[in-house]
Amino acid sequence: MRILILGADGYLGWPTCMYFSQRGHDVVGIDNYFRRNAAIALDCEPLLPTPNLIQRAKIWEKITGKRINIHVGDATNYAFLLKIFKEYKPDTVVHYAEQPSAPYSMINQEKAAFTLQNNLISTLNIVYAVKEANRDCHIIKLGTMGEYGTPNIDIEEGWLEINHKGKKDKFLFPRQASSLYHTTKIQDTDMLWFYVRTWGIRVTDLMQGPVYGISTDEADRDSQLVPNFHYDEVFGTVLNRFVVQAVANYPLTVYGKGGQIRGYLNLKDTMQCVYLSATQPVKNGELRIFNQVTETFSVNELADKVCAVGNKLGYNVNINHIENPRKEKEEHYYNPKYTGLLELGLKPNYLTDDELTGIFRKVEQYKDQINRDAIFRGIKWSAETLSGTA
Amino acid sequence: MRILILGADGYLGWPTCMYFSQRGHDVVGIDNYFRRNAAIALDCEPLLPTPNLIQRAKIWEKITGKRINIHVGDATNYAFLLKIFKEYKPDTVVHYAEQPSAPYSMINQEKAAFTLQNNLISTLNIVYAVKEANRDCHIIKLGTMGEYGTPNIDIEEGWLEINHKGKKDKFLFPRQASSLYHTTKIQDTDMLWFYVRTWGIRVTDLMQGPVYGISTDEADRDSQLVPNFHYDEVFGTVLNRFVVQAVANYPLTVYGKGGQIRGYLNLKDTMQCVYLSATQPVKNGELRIFNQVTETFSVNELADKVCAVGNKLGYNVNINHIENPRKEKEEHYYNPKYTGLLELGLKPNYLTDDELTGIFRKVEQYKDQINRDAIFRGIKWSAETLSGTA
Repeated sequence: MRILILGADGYLGWPTCMYFSQRGHDVVGIDNYFRRNAAIALDCEPLLPTPNLIQRAKIWEKITGKRINIHVGDATNYAFLLKIFKEYKPDTVVHYAEQPSAPYSMINQEKAAFTLQNNLISTLNIVYAVKEANRDCHIIKLGTMGEYGTPNIDIEEGWLEINHKGKKDKFLFPRQASSLYHTTKIQDTDMLWFYVRTWGIRVTDLMQGPVYGISTDEADRDSQLVPNFHYDEVFGTVLNRFVVQAVANYPLTVYGKGGQIRGYLNLKDTMQCVYLSATQPVKNGELRIFNQVTETFSVNELADKVCAVGNKLGYNVNINHIENPRKEKEEHYYNPKYTGLLELGLKPNYLTDDELTGIFRKVEQYKDQINRDAIFRGIKWSAETLSGTA
Repeated sequence: MRILILGADGYLGWPTCMYFSQRGHDVVGIDNYFRRNAAIALDCEPLLPTPNLIQRAKIWEKITGKRINIHVGDATNYAFLLKIFKEYKPDTVVHYAEQPSAPYSMINQEKAAFTLQNNLISTLNIVYAVKEANRDCHIIKLGTMGEYGTPNIDIEEGWLEINHKGKKDKFLFPRQASSLYHTTKIQDTDMLWFYVRTWGIRVTDLMQGPVYGISTDEADRDSQLVPNFHYDEVFGTVLNRFVVQAVANYPLTVYGKGGQIRGYLNLKDTMQCVYLSATQPVKNGELRIFNQVTETFSVNELADKVCAVGNKLGYNVNINHIENPRKEKEEHYYNPKYTGLLELGLKPNYLTDDELTGIFRKVEQYKDQINRDAIFRGIKWSAETLSGTA
C-alpha cells in the first residue's frame, strides 16, 4: 500500500516509517519539526542524537535499498497537505502530527492555543484532503487512553450502549481528560465521528496508552536510526523517564501517591497495532476504535520494577514521592478493555525484566549526555508560565 | 453587576446588552463584526437595517441615559481580550462570539477551519482571561441543543448517570451533532469542563434551541435598536425564515419530510434565561448546564403554524418539501428535559398566533427589502463549495 505518515520525525513516526518500508510498502513521511524545535527551545533535547528526517531516510535507503519519501511541511497548512495527498494518493494516512505533550499544553495561553489549533486544524485538513483526493483513504488517528480519564465504570473500547428510562442507544464512551492536550484528542474524536457519519470516510482511532522502549527491529539496524528518546518532563513518557533517572542516580519522580493506574505498551507493539490496523482497514462510514495498551500498571508498580532491575544492574535507585504538579486522582478504579487489537493479531511484548534491561543497556551508552536539569522542572497544571520559557 | 458581552453585534448579543443595561447593570460589548461582514460577502444581509454598535449604543444612551461601552475587536486575539478583562474586571461574561451558522461551517475547508479556530480559540481565551483577571468571573456560554443530536433516549439537562456492569458514574450527556458548527460547541463543552475541573472556574452552559422573534421591550423602543434579523439560509433561523418566505410569497422551504423535531424559544426568553443565569450564578468549580428551550415542534408543525397565521393575514402560503441539503434524521425520537430554567424563574413566551402575527407585522414593514435570492441556495452538507462564494 501507499502510506502517508504525518509526524514522521516523532518517537512513533520514524519507527513507523521504517516498519512499513521494511514490509514493502510505499512510505511518504511529513513533519514540520515542531517537536524538534520545541525541545531545543525548552532545553530538553532527546538523549540519543537523531539526524534530520532526510538524513535518516538516506541512511535507511543505504542499508535497505528502500526509499522513504520525506517532505518537510506543516499539516495545518491545507494547501501543502492537499498537494501531498493529490501527488501521492495514499491508501492510508497515519496522523501522528499532533502536539503530543500534556505538560506543554498546560504551560501558558500561547502554548495551549498552539496545541488546540495544531491538533484540530491538522485533523480537519486530513479529513478535507481525504475527501478531496481519495475518499477511500483510511485515516488512522492516534487517540489516547487519557481521553477516558479514570471513570468509575469499566472502560469499553470506544463505544457504550446506554439504557435509559426504558430506551437504549449506542454512543461514544464518555470522555473526560486531565490535560488540554488530552482534551484536544477528545475534540478530534468528536470531529472525526461527525465527518465519518456525514461524508462516509473511514477512520480507525487508536486509543493509545503511554509507550515505552527504544528498540524496534528496524531501529536496531543502525545507531542513527533510533527514535527520538525523550526523558524530560515535557516530551518523555514515564517509564523511559524512570530508566534515565535510575541511570543518572536521580530519585524516581513519582507524582503524589503514585496510585495512578494507566495502560502501557511497548514501542514495538505500537508498530504492530498500526500495521494491523492499516492492513485490516475498516469500512467506509465507520469509526473503529481500539484501546491500544497491552497491560496496566500503577506508577508505583513501574517505579518498583525500575528499582528492581536497576538495583540488579548495580544502580542504587531511590524513589521520591514529589508533590503532584498535575491535577489527577492518585487512587481510583481503572478497568479498561483491550481485546480488539489482540483479535486482529497483536502479539504483545510485555514489560519483562529483560525488556527493561534492554532499555537500561541502551540508555547507559548515552549516560554522559543526560541533562539533569531537563528531568524535572514541575510544570504545574495551575501554573501560568514555566520559568524561563515564556 | 458588570457584564461583558462578546458578540454584542449579534441577533442575541445586542438585545442582551440592552436588557442588562435597562436593569441597571454596567454593560461592556465587544464584537469583531464577523457576521456583519460575512453577510455582506455572501449577499445575505439582514432584513432590517442595523446601525453599527457604536451608533446603536449612542441611540440607546440618548433614549435611556444609560451607557453601554463598546469595543470593536476580536475575542480570538488574546492580548485584546485580556486587556478588556483587566480594564473592566467583569463579574459575568456572556460568550456569543462564536461563528453561529451550521451551513457556513459546511461550505468549504476555509470556512470550516475558520469556525473551528474562531469558536475554540475564543473560548480558550475567555478561560485564560478569567483565570488571569478575575477567577470568580462567571462564564455564560451559549451551547446548543444540537450538540445532543437526536438520540433514541431521553435528553437530560447536560448530565447523565450511567450504570454499567454493576458500577456507576456521572458524565456529560452523550453528544453527537449534525454540523461542524454544532460539533465546535461540543468541543467547547469538553474544554470548559476540563478547565472547570482543573482551575475551579465557574461556567453556565446554555444549550439553546433555535431562537425566533424580533421583539424585546428594549428593541421596541426605536426602529434603529432592532436586532439583526436574518432570513437567509446561512444566518437565519427556521421560524424567522418561514415568516419572511410567507410574506415574500415564496413557498416555505421544508427540508425533506419535515419530521425533524427541535426545541425552540422566543428571543424574549433568551434574554430572560441569560439574565436568570447571570443573576443566580453557579459556584466556582461547577459546570451548570440548562436546556434552553420552551417547547418542541417538528418543522412541519412550524410550517403549518406559519401557513395558518399567514393565510389569516391574507397571504397565500404554500409549503415546498425540498430535497434536504443537510444530513439529518427526518423522523426520530426526541424527548428533551427543560425544567432547570423554569425553576430559576423563567416565564415562557410561547409561540402563539399573536406572537407569530407580531413577527409578520414587523416583517411586512420591510417587505420591499426582501432579497429573494438569499432565501435558499442549497448549501449541501456534502458540497465542497457554494457557488459564487469560494
